[in-house]
Amino acid sequence: MSAGALSGAGPFGGLGIAELARRIRSGESTAVEITEQALAAAHSVGAELNCFVTVDDDGARRAAQLADAELVSGLDRGPLHGIPVGVKDMIATSGLATTMGSRHFAGDTPAQDASVVSSLRTAGAVILGKTQTHEFAYGPTSDRAATGAARNPQDLSRMTGGSSGGSAAAVAAGLIPLALGTDTGGSVRIPAALCGAVGLRPTQGSIDMIGAFPLSPTMDVVGPIAGSVADTALGWWALSTRPESSGAHWSLWTAPRIPEPGRVRGVRIGQPVCDLVDRVDQSARGGQQAAADALAASGAALTELALPELDETSGPYYDIQSAEAYEIHEERVRRAPELFDPEVLERLEAAARVPGWRYVRALDVRRRLRAGMLDKLAAVDIVLMPTVPLEAPVINQRDLDPNTGWSGVREALLALTSPWSLLGFPAISVPVPMGGETMLGSVQLVAKPGQEHLLLDTAALLENSLPGSPKWG
Amino acid sequence: MSAGALSGAGPFGGLGIAELARRIRSGESTAVEITEQALAAAHSVGAELNCFVTVDDDGARRAAQLADAELVSGLDRGPLHGIPVGVKDMIATSGLATTMGSRHFAGDTPAQDASVVSSLRTAGAVILGKTQTHEFAYGPTSDRAATGAARNPQDLSRMTGGSSGGSAAAVAAGLIPLALGTDTGGSVRIPAALCGAVGLRPTQGSIDMIGAFPLSPTMDVVGPIAGSVADTALGWWALSTRPESSGAHWSLWTAPRIPEPGRVRGVRIGQPVCDLVDRVDQSARGGQQAAADALAASGAALTELALPELDETSGPYYDIQSAEAYEIHEERVRRAPELFDPEVLERLEAAARVPGWRYVRALDVRRRLRAGMLDKLAAVDIVLMPTVPLEAPVINQRDLDPNTGWSGVREALLALTSPWSLLGFPAISVPVPMGGETMLGSVQLVAKPGQEHLLLDTAALLENSLPGSPKWG
Repeated sequence: MSAGALSGAGPFGGLGIAELARRIRSGESTAVEITEQALAAAHSVGAELNCFVTVDDDGARRAAQLADAELVSGLDRGPLHGIPVGVKDMIATSGLATTMGSRHFAGDTPAQDASVVSSLRTAGAVILGKTQTHEFAYGPTSDRAATGAARNPQDLSRMTGGSSGGSAAAVAAGLIPLALGTDTGGSVRIPAALCGAVGLRPTQGSIDMIGAFPLSPTMDVVGPIAGSVADTALGWWALSTRPESSGAHWSLWTAPRIPEPGRVRGVRIGQPVCDLVDRVDQSARGGQQAAADALAASGAALTELALPELDETSGPYYDIQSAEAYEIHEERVRRAPELFDPEVLERLEAAARVPGWRYVRALDVRRRLRAGMLDKLAAVDIVLMPTVPLEAPVINQRDLDPNTGWSGVREALLALTSPWSLLGFPAISVPVPMGGETMLGSVQLVAKPGQEHLLLDTAALLENSLPGSPKWG
Repeated sequence: MSAGALSGAGPFGGLGIAELARRIRSGESTAVEITEQALAAAHSVGAELNCFVTVDDDGARRAAQLADAELVSGLDRGPLHGIPVGVKDMIATSGLATTMGSRHFAGDTPAQDASVVSSLRTAGAVILGKTQTHEFAYGPTSDRAATGAARNPQDLSRMTGGSSGGSAAAVAAGLIPLALGTDTGGSVRIPAALCGAVGLRPTQGSIDMIGAFPLSPTMDVVGPIAGSVADTALGWWALSTRPESSGAHWSLWTAPRIPEPGRVRGVRIGQPVCDLVDRVDQSARGGQQAAADALAASGAALTELALPELDETSGPYYDIQSAEAYEIHEERVRRAPELFDPEVLERLEAAARVPGWRYVRALDVRRRLRAGMLDKLAAVDIVLMPTVPLEAPVINQRDLDPNTGWSGVREALLALTSPWSLLGFPAISVPVPMGGETMLGSVQLVAKPGQEHLLLDTAALLENSLPGSPKWG
């Protein structure tokens, strides 16, 4: 294992939410102290990584003071109470600029919180600031944005991946213990994998998307990025749980569920056999092998599973994403094309040319593939495969050696995550402390729709089983 | 009132299903005798109208013999038992050629019945033959088909309208008492209006479409065409009711409901005010006024209702239809374009150019318009408006006087029916025995989704109230 540069350089590297929550309640620390540490780190290390678009010093301090006061008064909102979190700049925050990474929304300040932000605040979280995003989330590299490229904390010359690059970089650097991303084709999982964090894409349709700026509404979903599976589960709990009023205050209506590897001993794990997973590099193969070995040693039942369906997903994925994305941006492209990053504009112009009949057909193919995949996966509980087929490229790199089998960086980064986006299945990327020479590896676990509990339990089993795995307490 | 040429020339002009059913049971007639009359008419008058693609002499005779034998044995399948019906050649019939009006399917014989045909047979109906359709149902004129143009029984030089032109012509000429059509943008209602029959478009999604060849699957629906509202209601009953097995034989699981004007005295009827209905000719205005007067005299409460939403439906209608239609025909256009009628091919080639983002937006607009229309129509029970804005043009006519406000025949014919197709509301066209000089007029009644009972009762009220209305008994 090797993680260089600014990995875990911030105050929360290796320090998980449960321990922070304990310190706040024991008096060893306060929400204000923890928030001040996060703010300082965001301004220093965060600036080097260019992972924040906006750091909300005043708002975060006020929220932390309120959190401390509530605890003193006896109101405990649960494990996220007083914990600083980052919110991707695609997600609306009341009174706090939300730019979508674009000059089109420079300085734009929403009047209302997105539903997921509302849930986070109800859980007591302190919104520290807004994290960098690939412009309009329309790219997996996070090096095209009005405020410039985000930098990978493991190697500042490399891209974070994206589009939730700022969230993944901030978490992997230990600047905040938890951040929100959005995932359309892999925008939570890809940067989590490249930066060395855990990232969960929940089941399509399970998260209230009001206030999350769309890219491709039939595939968009908000997901958490954190330093451990347990903290990711806390983030998912807050996102997926409705705030409800009970007397004097609002609260989330269910308690969080801590992932427990003991529940999934003997879990049936399928490793896909198909062309896509044949085209991954040695680092991805190494990560996959290490994860498989660790899970098998912990009692999981591993099998191979022919999944040629995965090789058919790319066409419908791009057709659906293109038609939906251009529909959202059509007026902006028409009225003020010069405000887009040129590469994003070019991508939109290509998206405009996807014909309607291909979109209609892609929806049909998606329905067929989804039904077929549910049949196929009756034989296993979880699918295990790489999250990305290669290590983080350098910032602005677009071309790849044709021998890799990929036409370019964008196609390669999205290749293994977008199939599950198209199908709407929940998936999580977990760091694997081996793989490349200088970078953390990663693997992706996938479950059937609605089976986030099983997915998180299995991810916790993997995390616990990996030799040399960081145990963030 | 005036209805010339071959209107009602066949054995069932002015003769309804209830009376036929009575005669079969009283011994005054038999299913075989009635079927022989229908076959003779189909070969004589039907040939002049070019309204059948295939007349199934052998199959119809066998079915009629079986129907008579069943009655002798005590098995009575209800009012359609032994009644000859026509099936549009877009709807699969087991062992009977089904061509979609196209050389692409010349001689093609399905192995299975469409679900609606299965239901008709379970109700005891005798499938007399397959009726002419505009090629692939892709046009409202029924003058482009592999077997040539259908002719309007009121005036053989005029078009039937379409795409269910053969069904409407055969019914209006009295060759059969009931026929099935399919309605995407108005393909049941338009030819019913132009030929002088009743035609019902059921609620989108309420009819099992298996075996009905698609044009635009999110707007396609099968509907009945008949000589009276009561007979249309019987057709709708058979289409919308599942066959179920009860012991020795299959039957439809509910009994038919006879439309009863007495149930809807005082019904609230809105007459839309919008640009579309301002652009209708004197015949349409006359029909609308006559229908409004008749309904008011029968105790209905008529009001004006501003519905500018109707003026916004055309763009999304064509975008959705185009994308979905081309998706269905893409392979045929690529492999054998020469087998299409040139006008249909040109229409498909234009449809191929609708961009995906416009389809996505049209789906959004449809959702919004549908919700808005449900709100608007809270104030009334039924909408009353013309079915078509002009009388039947002559066969192959495409241009219209620009003073009409319409760009051409296709746009004009679809203008008043396609809004309800887009929105998915049920609608019925009812003949009005005044309007033009030589042709029957018509009006369209529209109800909220799922309210076919109310719609049919109100249509029966109108039919009973019209002076000089044909009372088919």
